[in-house]
Amino acid sequence: MTAPEGFLRELEKLFPAGSRHTDPAQCWAYGYDNSKRQALPDAVVFPRSHEDVVTLVRLCNRHRVPLTARGRGTGTTGATVPIAGGVVASLERMTRIIEISPDNRFAVVEPGVTNQALQDAVKPHGFFWPPDPTSAEFCSIGGNLAYNSAGPRAVKYGTPRENTLGLRAVTGAGEELRCGVYTTKGVVGYDLTRLIIGSEGTLAIITEATLKLTPLPSAKRTLRAIYADVASAARAIARIMAQPVIPCALEFIDGNAIALVRRYAAVDLPEDAAALLMIELDGSPESLDAGVESLRAAASLDGLVEFRAARTATEVEALWSIRKALSPSLRKVAPKKLNEDVVVPVTELPALIAGLDELSQKHAIPIVNFGHAGNGNIHVNLLFDPDRADENERAHACLHEMFALVLELRGTLSGEHGVGIEKRDYVGKELDRTSLALMHAIKRQFDPCGILNPGKSFPAEEAPPPA
Amino acid sequence: MTAPEGFLRELEKLFPAGSRHTDPAQCWAYGYDNSKRQALPDAVVFPRSHEDVVTLVRLCNRHRVPLTARGRGTGTTGATVPIAGGVVASLERMTRIIEISPDNRFAVVEPGVTNQALQDAVKPHGFFWPPDPTSAEFCSIGGNLAYNSAGPRAVKYGTPRENTLGLRAVTGAGEELRCGVYTTKGVVGYDLTRLIIGSEGTLAIITEATLKLTPLPSAKRTLRAIYADVASAARAIARIMAQPVIPCALEFIDGNAIALVRRYAAVDLPEDAAALLMIELDGSPESLDAGVESLRAAASLDGLVEFRAARTATEVEALWSIRKALSPSLRKVAPKKLNEDVVVPVTELPALIAGLDELSQKHAIPIVNFGHAGNGNIHVNLLFDPDRADENERAHACLHEMFALVLELRGTLSGEHGVGIEKRDYVGKELDRTSLALMHAIKRQFDPCGILNPGKSFPAEEAPPPA
Repeated sequence: MTAPEGFLRELEKLFPAGSRHTDPAQCWAYGYDNSKRQALPDAVVFPRSHEDVVTLVRLCNRHRVPLTARGRGTGTTGATVPIAGGVVASLERMTRIIEISPDNRFAVVEPGVTNQALQDAVKPHGFFWPPDPTSAEFCSIGGNLAYNSAGPRAVKYGTPRENTLGLRAVTGAGEELRCGVYTTKGVVGYDLTRLIIGSEGTLAIITEATLKLTPLPSAKRTLRAIYADVASAARAIARIMAQPVIPCALEFIDGNAIALVRRYAAVDLPEDAAALLMIELDGSPESLDAGVESLRAAASLDGLVEFRAARTATEVEALWSIRKALSPSLRKVAPKKLNEDVVVPVTELPALIAGLDELSQKHAIPIVNFGHAGNGNIHVNLLFDPDRADENERAHACLHEMFALVLELRGTLSGEHGVGIEKRDYVGKELDRTSLALMHAIKRQFDPCGILNPGKSFPAEEAPPPA
Repeated sequence: MTAPEGFLRELEKLFPAGSRHTDPAQCWAYGYDNSKRQALPDAVVFPRSHEDVVTLVRLCNRHRVPLTARGRGTGTTGATVPIAGGVVASLERMTRIIEISPDNRFAVVEPGVTNQALQDAVKPHGFFWPPDPTSAEFCSIGGNLAYNSAGPRAVKYGTPRENTLGLRAVTGAGEELRCGVYTTKGVVGYDLTRLIIGSEGTLAIITEATLKLTPLPSAKRTLRAIYADVASAARAIARIMAQPVIPCALEFIDGNAIALVRRYAAVDLPEDAAALLMIELDGSPESLDAGVESLRAAASLDGLVEFRAARTATEVEALWSIRKALSPSLRKVAPKKLNEDVVVPVTELPALIAGLDELSQKHAIPIVNFGHAGNGNIHVNLLFDPDRADENERAHACLHEMFALVLELRGTLSGEHGVGIEKRDYVGKELDRTSLALMHAIKRQFDPCGILNPGKSFPAEEAPPPA
């Protein structure tokens, strides 16, 4: 769509030069995310306060103009790409850390604060905020909440839903609300906090978040277990999760990933390494030796080739080097690869990996798997060139069957990347008819004119078609 | 209301004798909960399966007959009292433990399973489910989820919202749904799981829950700290929560409670004990000594009279004896006391306790405080005889001012008991207009005819008046 003339005039009056862009050349830079998709908004606005957001939403709502909230554009699903045009609200200037209360273990922040800036601010008090997406250095808290983004630490510490106490937000109708509490308990009313978290900006725009802080562990150990085959590694993951010591990271890399790294980097790995687990354990220094032994016992089964525990910072770095070399190697071999973040119960990991192997062969699409094994959250990378029609077709047929496999194994289509545009059309395969209808109905209560991020998160019911 | 004649005939056909009561004498026993309120339902039905619940809800919905789901009636707010008449669905016969998956750390259960039965079933696998209300031996998982009930362990392990992966449920429209996942990550669609948890049976009836299990800690220590005044104890709580070792229980008892226990039981306490903290720490055996020292350091400040660490089971029992003697003593002195479960940020505990002291004097109502201090969740007991009009009036004036104080301190009116009927008329003081309107709107999407537990959880908007 193109925003109505009267709307743009009003917008320019309410948000003077310096607080918005309407020049397409400037707007263009706010129309993409890490999905590589891009669309041109009619305007970009940079709110500085909750009140600015209220003003903006009310204006858009009155004129029925689509409004897409945006953090730092690090998402991978197109959720912040303004496919219906209208306004992008870039929250990058709402970067105040409003309050840090160590005794109460919370921090109150605006949505534009980066994950890293928050960690830096609470670290001197002895705390951290657990969610740790790969993009932590750059991504915003608002984005983390919108997607319910997590990372390796989620296996022990949970996702934003388990680490957020309350929100301030503005609905699609331009109404202000505060939900949740400043405490770790509170049962008055329905849980709107978690409803808004993970809703990808389709229900409300978050203007303030009260985050639950966790004490920094005083010590950490890094372990690496190498297996002769993927099935053994998958069994080890289930055994590790069945014993009482919860690692703060349990990352998996499959044989194809190892082969890829070998191609592009010099790595110190046994010849027969066909799968690898990176395990991190944190806690009090006194508890770690026993914890390492418990993890070593769980990781030790037929197929284990090597188990190493790093003792020094240099050794830690050496153990992580394979994992770190992986992403650049993947980019070299398939710059436009598909990276899915499916999840299955950990006992189903062997079946998932075996099934993916079959699909890879059937469709002649190389697949590389790695990810957050402790949650059963595997990043499945389909390596192909989307510009070659035949490869593209085979890859998407493969993807389709992969999603069916994941659901058959009682899994979910996304563990942390979200739905956005990328998985929108698959959502109906996971959610039942009643749930979907309720979600659409809830959306209408928060956003009666459907202006907030239209066309995202769900198969279109009433959303305008992509531009 | 009285249920329409045709409705009861249909009900009796669908649910044969043995699966329902319609005789008032039998129904009466299902019309109360631990709030001491009672109302007579027209019928009580005992579903045995998800399908039975679907049948029942559809019937009630077609006839616009109120339907109140009930676990074991241990709630304290009247949430399961059928004030609008109609049908009580007693879920006590849905007691199947459908699946226990230790490797995946989940258990799938029907709502009538008691908290204790669940713990007994998962313990041999080395796991527990963290929520531990006082009534754990008898209360049901369905009730725990409906209220988002917790107990002492919540300070370390969270409430049902943090310990539930997914639900199967039936909406007020009789539609079936499954929400959530079988894994610890999942971001497809809005979070209906947490929306239904804590909704007190007003949105849907839960027929199956997938619960996240936690490994049983291998060791535990019990500590007791006694203070010369309440303010010192309150400062100690904030200091304990600001250091990295998270206790698995941090319980508080004030001076009035200690005085009361002294009156009715022989207790081994220093003369000048005016406040008491019970602290429990769990974890690996290797970590506990250092943990105890960290907690001792945090608890040690001016006003500390005595700090004891139990070494044997007998010593543990001795330390807990004061706390255990408290409830019987309270019942003796004021059998119809009001027990509120307000929450404030832990740094506000000194202000809360001081404020309550003032209110107690102003209204001449003795107040005894104890509770889950680590969450700032204090059970405030107003001791009075509601059958004496003057005392009753003063107590409610006191309650009113107490709630205002709690909200002023950024607290919440209920940490674990819920709203039900008891706090319904205060909800509007905590939640803003937008949130309340959204909650009513969400309710209408799940339950268009308003049959599910009418008149509960919120100030009446469209609900029928209490019978």
